Amino acid sequence: MVDYIASAGLRGALDDIIQSMNDGFNRLIPCTEDPRSKLINAMRYSALGGGKRLRPLLVRATAALFDVEPRAVMRVALAVEAVHCYSLVHDDLPCMDDDDMRRGQPTTHKAFDEASAVLAGDALLTLAFEILSHVDTHPDPHVRCDLIASLAQAAGHNGMVGGQAMDIAAETSQFDLRTTTRLQQLKTGALIDFSVEAGAILGRASAESGTHLKGYARDLGLAFQITDDLLDAEGDPATTGKTVGKDAAAGKSTLVTLMGLDQAKNQAQALVSQAIDHLRSFDAKADLLRAIAQFAIVRDK
Amino acid sequence: MVDYIASAGLRGALDDIIQSMNDGFNRLIPCTEDPRSKLINAMRYSALGGGKRLRPLLVRATAALFDVEPRAVMRVALAVEAVHCYSLVHDDLPCMDDDDMRRGQPTTHKAFDEASAVLAGDALLTLAFEILSHVDTHPDPHVRCDLIASLAQAAGHNGMVGGQAMDIAAETSQFDLRTTTRLQQLKTGALIDFSVEAGAILGRASAESGTHLKGYARDLGLAFQITDDLLDAEGDPATTGKTVGKDAAAGKSTLVTLMGLDQAKNQAQALVSQAIDHLRSFDAKADLLRAIAQFAIVRDK
Repeated sequence: MVDYIASAGLRGALDDIIQSMNDGFNRLIPCTEDPRSKLINAMRYSALGGGKRLRPLLVRATAALFDVEPRAVMRVALAVEAVHCYSLVHDDLPCMDDDDMRRGQPTTHKAFDEASAVLAGDALLTLAFEILSHVDTHPDPHVRCDLIASLAQAAGHNGMVGGQAMDIAAETSQFDLRTTTRLQQLKTGALIDFSVEAGAILGRASAESGTHLKGYARDLGLAFQITDDLLDAEGDPATTGKTVGKDAAAGKSTLVTLMGLDQAKNQAQALVSQAIDHLRSFDAKADLLRAIAQFAIVRDK
Repeated sequence: MVDYIASAGLRGALDDIIQSMNDGFNRLIPCTEDPRSKLINAMRYSALGGGKRLRPLLVRATAALFDVEPRAVMRVALAVEAVHCYSLVHDDLPCMDDDDMRRGQPTTHKAFDEASAVLAGDALLTLAFEILSHVDTHPDPHVRCDLIASLAQAAGHNGMVGGQAMDIAAETSQFDLRTTTRLQQLKTGALIDFSVEAGAILGRASAESGTHLKGYARDLGLAFQITDDLLDAEGDPATTGKTVGKDAAAGKSTLVTLMGLDQAKNQAQALVSQAIDHLRSFDAKADLLRAIAQFAIVRDK
């Protein structure tokens, strides 16, 4: 198979989206000297603290299929990343996953305090909808409402938050592979689906293109999650920047414990091929999406 | 002055909005038997747990000035109440105000657990934007986007969450009356402002009507907050359903400690008169808004 990671210039695209996101969050959440400064600093810490910026890159790579205006792409990418960052801040709280480190840095509640972490998460989630509702995101309010409706569904109790609730339930219930797959589809898949769908909404993709892209996102999300579970089982904490072996320690079923290491690796590889296959009707403009699928399972963090 | 509470039938209107909100949340958040059931139950507990439903009533009373379609009113009222309920759930958390009781019932993290309370709050906030983005809320997407933009601004770091952050800072800093007023304007005022503004957006109010309604909301919000502080200082926990004297115990400045009891009561009364005065260009259709202003300071919980 073609090495799209090299041919599509994925490394450069990743560096570029990281820079764009940092610039964007710096503009959207400026420092302040007023009594809200601790909250604002906690928001900035949570949003500017690094990460692969995979979801923003998915928005950009999908929108590139349809030549969407760059400012629209950037704002939607910032909105989805704000939701992703908020979810990490709340998931890391002591009452949730109780993680002290994230991306090699103290988690938000460790760097600040729990109250600031709760509020910074709340504010980042709210900011996402403020960004999307603004006319700068798209001149057509139908498009803005479609984006907001899709993001709210992906992020809420029938999406990401529902998945996180299932993940907590998994500590005391033994879920089978079907239920664990559903859990991951909600917890991480829904926002990955949205990132691709958002590019399609911005590009006013045809129903047929939309279906292909949905198939791509679904397979990519699952491959991505299997790789996350593999990194938790086998990864190096110095590279991943977070505690590893947590799922096993918590006695939690993951896709990897349920399938076994070998089958999990094969399954991730098969999903990547399948994801790329969904893109067969697109030309070379889709090579960045193809590269992201390949990257999802070869990354070491 | 006329007793609008009696003449406008406020008691009946309050009973009616309580029933409407409970019916609405029951429909929007149905029970489920799947692994997300604890989250769903925590959301239902937080949204259906009573309260005065003041913000929904403000949406309804303002929209009544412009004969807005009832379904639109109801959906916007549910959205603002979902945000209010989420804010209470997060504010009650041990890392925030650490309250065990709310409306005479255990707070959500006491009835469930902290993780469920964090997630239920997150999901209710997200649900608010899902409701507003849906075509059932208003056929015109411009109106939906205006509602979403206003709610996001009112609820986020430049609104309610910013006010809560200031409230936490007030435990360690001594704020003067000006800063404490600003704190309250953000923490409770912003969502009250939005409730009135939402009725005006739905009714496509003229700029002039909008300005009068904004003035009304601003004065009402402050009168409401002074009364809350008075109830905290002098109220009966059996009636208010929550711990009283917390602010004093925490050594926190409130509008009441800064003004003194007598001046605070006079100020609340003056604000109510001023709020009603802002409505002078409206006919008897505004009597429910006038009644709400009078009620804001005579309530005992």
